[in-house]
Amino acid sequence: MLESSLSSSQSEASVAPGIGTLFGVGVGPGDPDLITIKALETIRKVPAIAFPAGVNGKPGIAEQIAERWVHPRQTKISLAFPYVLDSDTLSEAWKVASETVWSYLAQGQDVTFLCEGDISFYSTFTYLAQTLLQNHPDLRVEAIPGVCSPMAAAAALGIPLTTQGQKLVVLPALYTVADLETTLDEADVVVLMKVKSVYEKVWQMLNRRNLLEHSAVVEWATWPQQKIYTPLSDRPSLDLSYFSLLIVQKQPFSL
Amino acid sequence: MLESSLSSSQSEASVAPGIGTLFGVGVGPGDPDLITIKALETIRKVPAIAFPAGVNGKPGIAEQIAERWVHPRQTKISLAFPYVLDSDTLSEAWKVASETVWSYLAQGQDVTFLCEGDISFYSTFTYLAQTLLQNHPDLRVEAIPGVCSPMAAAAALGIPLTTQGQKLVVLPALYTVADLETTLDEADVVVLMKVKSVYEKVWQMLNRRNLLEHSAVVEWATWPQQKIYTPLSDRPSLDLSYFSLLIVQKQPFSL
Repeated sequence: MLESSLSSSQSEASVAPGIGTLFGVGVGPGDPDLITIKALETIRKVPAIAFPAGVNGKPGIAEQIAERWVHPRQTKISLAFPYVLDSDTLSEAWKVASETVWSYLAQGQDVTFLCEGDISFYSTFTYLAQTLLQNHPDLRVEAIPGVCSPMAAAAALGIPLTTQGQKLVVLPALYTVADLETTLDEADVVVLMKVKSVYEKVWQMLNRRNLLEHSAVVEWATWPQQKIYTPLSDRPSLDLSYFSLLIVQKQPFSL
Repeated sequence: MLESSLSSSQSEASVAPGIGTLFGVGVGPGDPDLITIKALETIRKVPAIAFPAGVNGKPGIAEQIAERWVHPRQTKISLAFPYVLDSDTLSEAWKVASETVWSYLAQGQDVTFLCEGDISFYSTFTYLAQTLLQNHPDLRVEAIPGVCSPMAAAAALGIPLTTQGQKLVVLPALYTVADLETTLDEADVVVLMKVKSVYEKVWQMLNRRNLLEHSAVVEWATWPQQKIYTPLSDRPSLDLSYFSLLIVQKQPFSL
């Protein structure tokens, strides 16, 4: 059944208008098999695949995840998105990236942009797509959702992320300790994305609130190098990588 | 490549211990192609497929989503989970469901339980698995994450759900107006799940806060009957189905 589904989609893809379509695809959290059938089709039906470049000469994260699904004959477009906060530097990078992608779209080639996790959840795709749409308002853009890392981390931990009635809060890396205090007052479940740089401060706060027993860190969720740290009681500091998130449950699940 | 991946997983699955393994699989928000390769493998490698029963004699939601991926020869286990809040009624339902599933596991058969969306995100699987584990602590349970509806809705709307630095709050159906007021004070992006029963009250609040222009309702995200309502300014009431969610962005995305 998978076969026929893939081939029907491939024939549909050969309709090429004047300018190509930009597809954005969430390739999932890391395990290549956590990609969706639709994402896979959207990779296979285009001539060109774009993705954020890796650092230090390594392949990018999304590129690594999707490696087995991309055909050697497909054009690879590696786009540099610097890991900085300076908005001028970022705008310039999005502009350069969008011009690179446009050079393919303008020739009528469809381009699929890969991102790690889900395409709408803290993703670089937003900036790329919006920069392109600013200059080319008629561009057709389609987003394909994917599995995001909080869900993957909960599954790896064997816990529900949320159950009936629970309020979930997701905080990205850029939060203050005061933000986190308020959030812990209110939420039932809190996910701290990219917890590396703030882990020690967060640990102190969770310790004060007696929440370390119900907290867990998942590093590289679903990758071969996945690591799980729980409970956190005896771990005031951890040497974490960039892909680490922390889940706090104010009440552990019970029936 | 997909082929070899599927068959290697199938051979691995034929290792049968004394009792079967319970797999929980998120089948995605609705479009059957938004299932992951891993979920598909986990459906195909077991003899028995369980899912929440539908209402009024119709197939269940997860059952409908996965229909094309389940083989006619696989055993179907339809489990009744009443849509009520009474905890005695619910506990009794989980007990009955867990005994049904156990009758297969006890014979050494693996069972894959399907749920709509993601397996850890407001999912019935949690209750089924925990009820089983209470009575059978040695049971092996494995959860496979899936694409959840907020991500699918954002992709359908063509907007980012969250961008750099934004705080996301997800509220399930069971919240008070006061909860929502506090949440809107603090969050950058709010997702209200199952908004049907509270839509009119929510509309009033968003109207008072001038947030209707940045709000959208997505009904049946990624299903053929998907409907999008945005902006909400001229929609003080909507006749929504059970599978409707509302996304509020306090600041619309801009570069």
